[in-house]
Amino acid sequence: MSTVALDSIVAQALGRIEDRKIDHVFFVACGGSLSIMYPAKFMLDQYSSVLASDVYNAAEFTARAPRRLTPNALVILCSMTGTTRETVAATEFARAAGAYTVVLTTEPDSPLGKAGDCVVGFEAPYTTGVPIDAKDSNYARIYQIVLGLVKIFDGVDKLDTLLASLGGFQDAIDRAHECFAPHFDAYAPRLAKKDVVYTMASGADYGAAYSFSICVLMEMQWINSQAIHANEFFHGPFEILDREAAFILFMGLDSTRPLTERAETFLNRFGAQENVLVLDAATLDLSGIDPAFHGNFAPLIFFDTLWRFAYKIADLRDHEMLEARRYMKKLHDY
Amino acid sequence: MSTVALDSIVAQALGRIEDRKIDHVFFVACGGSLSIMYPAKFMLDQYSSVLASDVYNAAEFTARAPRRLTPNALVILCSMTGTTRETVAATEFARAAGAYTVVLTTEPDSPLGKAGDCVVGFEAPYTTGVPIDAKDSNYARIYQIVLGLVKIFDGVDKLDTLLASLGGFQDAIDRAHECFAPHFDAYAPRLAKKDVVYTMASGADYGAAYSFSICVLMEMQWINSQAIHANEFFHGPFEILDREAAFILFMGLDSTRPLTERAETFLNRFGAQENVLVLDAATLDLSGIDPAFHGNFAPLIFFDTLWRFAYKIADLRDHEMLEARRYMKKLHDY
Repeated sequence: MSTVALDSIVAQALGRIEDRKIDHVFFVACGGSLSIMYPAKFMLDQYSSVLASDVYNAAEFTARAPRRLTPNALVILCSMTGTTRETVAATEFARAAGAYTVVLTTEPDSPLGKAGDCVVGFEAPYTTGVPIDAKDSNYARIYQIVLGLVKIFDGVDKLDTLLASLGGFQDAIDRAHECFAPHFDAYAPRLAKKDVVYTMASGADYGAAYSFSICVLMEMQWINSQAIHANEFFHGPFEILDREAAFILFMGLDSTRPLTERAETFLNRFGAQENVLVLDAATLDLSGIDPAFHGNFAPLIFFDTLWRFAYKIADLRDHEMLEARRYMKKLHDY
Repeated sequence: MSTVALDSIVAQALGRIEDRKIDHVFFVACGGSLSIMYPAKFMLDQYSSVLASDVYNAAEFTARAPRRLTPNALVILCSMTGTTRETVAATEFARAAGAYTVVLTTEPDSPLGKAGDCVVGFEAPYTTGVPIDAKDSNYARIYQIVLGLVKIFDGVDKLDTLLASLGGFQDAIDRAHECFAPHFDAYAPRLAKKDVVYTMASGADYGAAYSFSICVLMEMQWINSQAIHANEFFHGPFEILDREAAFILFMGLDSTRPLTERAETFLNRFGAQENVLVLDAATLDLSGIDPAFHGNFAPLIFFDTLWRFAYKIADLRDHEMLEARRYMKKLHDY
């Protein structure tokens, strides 16, 4: 385990950004790629008093055309394949407004790669088929950008601590797989039978819950879902809770953790234990990751480990993860 | 129909704000009150290049403690009864950080009313039991604040046009009730039978869809739901669409309307017409409202008219709207 070097393209992008008067960051993508923007904004909210930010679906961003999109804006966009049309269009729209665009994709020669001012590559197991080191993932790269911005604009340098923590990241994920495995084994048969499975989270972890709801449960398994915010739960959604209701609660380690603790207490009181899967990051061994970043790394560990749970559910439902689709990649005219 | 006067407390708040260097607006509330903050942010995004903004659940806001919360921040909070604990705590937290707080409540003597720097009253049929004029609603007051801010900080004066449009607002809502009534009559029996009903919207209308999902379908009727963003739909959620799936699509009139048009085409192609309720604001007579604000008023009309649909569903399910609760207002220790 050793410190990771700052990605050379991220370093290049930060060099260009340094010369601009950035006052707003837009995090823009669609679906699964959008979900990783939530922890990125959480980190910027934690560390920057200078940079305001928004997270927008790419089509929403372009159609909304927020007035804060000026030559002083930085727009960070992501699409794994680089072919997501709405994200490519958003990049072109942002550049036409004079903003600086940093795009993340596994395919630098893709339409998205060609559209951005600066192209940061990353690795995804989905495309390579072989395991990757999490330090090379999109969220690891975006965290480098965010803390690079904080160093430039707020004069607070947390980048070295992040890079050192990224060195221990994959080991922590590997240990988390082992820690969560018994829970996944126990709950996959129970949740695979459900027509509706809710996820719940707060703070940095909301994106991980959102991604599991829309990309895994709805898209891949055709199970109804919603990613409920852990406090919004108490202002309406909790009324659907009975002993049959299925929930996956993501308990993270950031400053919003008490919100999920309150939700856990309520789920345990009125739900049935066999239908409520609690994934608690406090049970993980995160040694090698600086304690200041435990809350920021928790969602990334949820993103990663939950794929194994997804495959278990898929097997039990006989519903192939990557092929069973009604529309996506089957239709070409929508 | 005549121009509405600027609310005197809103005028007072704007006077105080004028002397401060505001650079960020936080819209903060819980549940149904949070949902009206979405169209408010949309309007600010449309008109202000000076003011950045965030919409946060009140507990999330306090626990997250964004670094942009400084004495230069304005925090706008809302709770109908003024007793929502998280919103009261968020107000105290914001004031302690030196930010200026404007609270909206129907009860100025409530804990929230006492916590804020400035208390804007409003009327809600829920509390008075008698019909109100929509010009006195919380969203009408918040729009006055938003365009007051735009006038001060961006030097763009749309306030008089807004006030004139608010004069014609209740009439437009009354006509909308008539226009939507046949749809509500036709779809209430179909959707009342469903275990899952999704709502879908984009732009200014997202909050109205969110509110109907969490406060009406989930809280009051114990029907599973999610408010899906109309473009995110195509990046995962659309895979759950079959001919049994139930959707309510909110088609608004702002610049994001094409996103809902694409969703409508898809729902019509692969869903069943009897399970897909399309509420199209383009079918409404909005005379009296300045065309520049049609997109901003559409969600407010959805908020209002949909209560009648909610009561129809409640009758059919024999599930009393205001009393049938498992937990809310029945438990006092959560």
